Amino acid sequence: LLSLKLLGTAAGGGFPQWNCACPLCNRSRQSPSKIPARLHLQAVFSSGGSGQFLINASPDLKFQIESEPALKPSSSRGKRNTPIAGIILTGADLDQVLGLLLLREFQPLRVFSTAAVRRVLEANPFFRMLQRLPGQLTWVEIAGGQPFQVGESILCTPITMKGSLPYYTRNSADESPSLEDGEACLGLLIESEGRRIAYTPSLPDITDDLKSLYESCDTILVDGTFWSDAELSQTQAGTPRARDIGHIPMSGEDGSVAQLKSITRPQKIFIHINNTNPVLDPESLERKTIEDAGWQIAPDGWQWR
Amino acid sequence: LLSLKLLGTAAGGGFPQWNCACPLCNRSRQSPSKIPARLHLQAVFSSGGSGQFLINASPDLKFQIESEPALKPSSSRGKRNTPIAGIILTGADLDQVLGLLLLREFQPLRVFSTAAVRRVLEANPFFRMLQRLPGQLTWVEIAGGQPFQVGESILCTPITMKGSLPYYTRNSADESPSLEDGEACLGLLIESEGRRIAYTPSLPDITDDLKSLYESCDTILVDGTFWSDAELSQTQAGTPRARDIGHIPMSGEDGSVAQLKSITRPQKIFIHINNTNPVLDPESLERKTIEDAGWQIAPDGWQWR
Repeated sequence: LLSLKLLGTAAGGGFPQWNCACPLCNRSRQSPSKIPARLHLQAVFSSGGSGQFLINASPDLKFQIESEPALKPSSSRGKRNTPIAGIILTGADLDQVLGLLLLREFQPLRVFSTAAVRRVLEANPFFRMLQRLPGQLTWVEIAGGQPFQVGESILCTPITMKGSLPYYTRNSADESPSLEDGEACLGLLIESEGRRIAYTPSLPDITDDLKSLYESCDTILVDGTFWSDAELSQTQAGTPRARDIGHIPMSGEDGSVAQLKSITRPQKIFIHINNTNPVLDPESLERKTIEDAGWQIAPDGWQWR
Repeated sequence: LLSLKLLGTAAGGGFPQWNCACPLCNRSRQSPSKIPARLHLQAVFSSGGSGQFLINASPDLKFQIESEPALKPSSSRGKRNTPIAGIILTGADLDQVLGLLLLREFQPLRVFSTAAVRRVLEANPFFRMLQRLPGQLTWVEIAGGQPFQVGESILCTPITMKGSLPYYTRNSADESPSLEDGEACLGLLIESEGRRIAYTPSLPDITDDLKSLYESCDTILVDGTFWSDAELSQTQAGTPRARDIGHIPMSGEDGSVAQLKSITRPQKIFIHINNTNPVLDPESLERKTIEDAGWQIAPDGWQWR
């Protein structure tokens, strides 16, 4: 049976964030039982004996592996081994790929990505550390709208998203300014035995196609990065607005809650919560607003079976 | 007064290691109270109101910051801030530099490194994420044998070490095959108010000069990566020998314990312990041998004042 677990639910930097002394971060440090800390977003799924599939590889991955029994090596398979059967990349942001660099130690890995994401990573000298033995790193090319099978009974379909390659690729030789939607940024539809989960932690816009897809799902995991468009720039001058970096905020007339009001079939879950988002406080008015609108904020450890 | 703390003491991959089911890693997972887990090596030092100085930036740095009160931001200094006044790099290994990429979020940083290490990191596109605001990243060039001051009362002197740039720089345009000793790999001598600590977690050899330096110190923190030269290759076929990757093993006629037997003035501490090293088990014969020879194995949280 399909199982999906969130080993972390926070946006970039986790929560609390290393250099942030805002009231939310401070209160979480003081009273983690009231406002729980969150590791960076990391999903893992499996079905039966398929092995474990990671969606992206978070910077917190080492801790997430050690905290999850299903991800630990087993002495029954020799001294060095891992149950991780593949890593599916939905983009090349540092928070999606840094964890790959923690999976060294000469361990064979299978990485699913678009050709553009692969180019970015293969051009980065750090990734040579994953190619020290012949056959250590195996790339599998995926593309928006083209289903691929993992394990024996799981069908994954990359969801085409607007979006460009990360900031760090700008002015570099590997940049391809003519990328089409879905070459740099993906969501992921996961299906097994009639069950469907949509994984979309980064939503630059909500199209009618996406709404139709959502309505066909049992559960949708949706971009919950920001409550409002100006939230980041209010915390630190000089930082961008939510929509400018590919995240529709939850609130407002054209926010995600309003735009997805008509989606009623699936369980609706927000993930990828930024440390500035007031919904992190379970007793906030914003959290109540979200929950009254039929949404949940996934905690770390949230599990779908 | 000078203070130095180890927020982690393990070599690459930490302990237990994500893909390792060897008896030591398994026993640590089952009985962490008997064989404690260790985060990756991370040292931090300060003196009076100098701010905190990190030696390198480990992949576990986010957790190490949140676990150490002296490293947390304070609301008395605004919403976004850090007490970290500088990061001193002694090399460009991933385990020494990946943590820098966790210190994003538009925070100004001051990084001390050799020109060669800076070239490697500046050539890596990921590091553009630390240069999103003008003046965000400030480089300070250091070189073997040339003292530099940090804070008001701490003198640091890079210790020249043999060693080349990391594997990942090979066959790349930024590789400089003609590097001299100390351009790629350093130790660090830290002095304040007549106290001296030598920080040398990576020892390719032990020269007479190094022995003289050690003898002048109050404490020496020494490469404790491996017990024996063949330990890594015995765990996993195809992996290199200790000496081939720049680490003198502890044991044997020409091991570090034997070579440093004549050094009697300083407190002698092993750090950077690999997950394959039997001294990780406090009840092992190897641990007893080390301790009988006058050495300690630093635990995570070890502190010098």
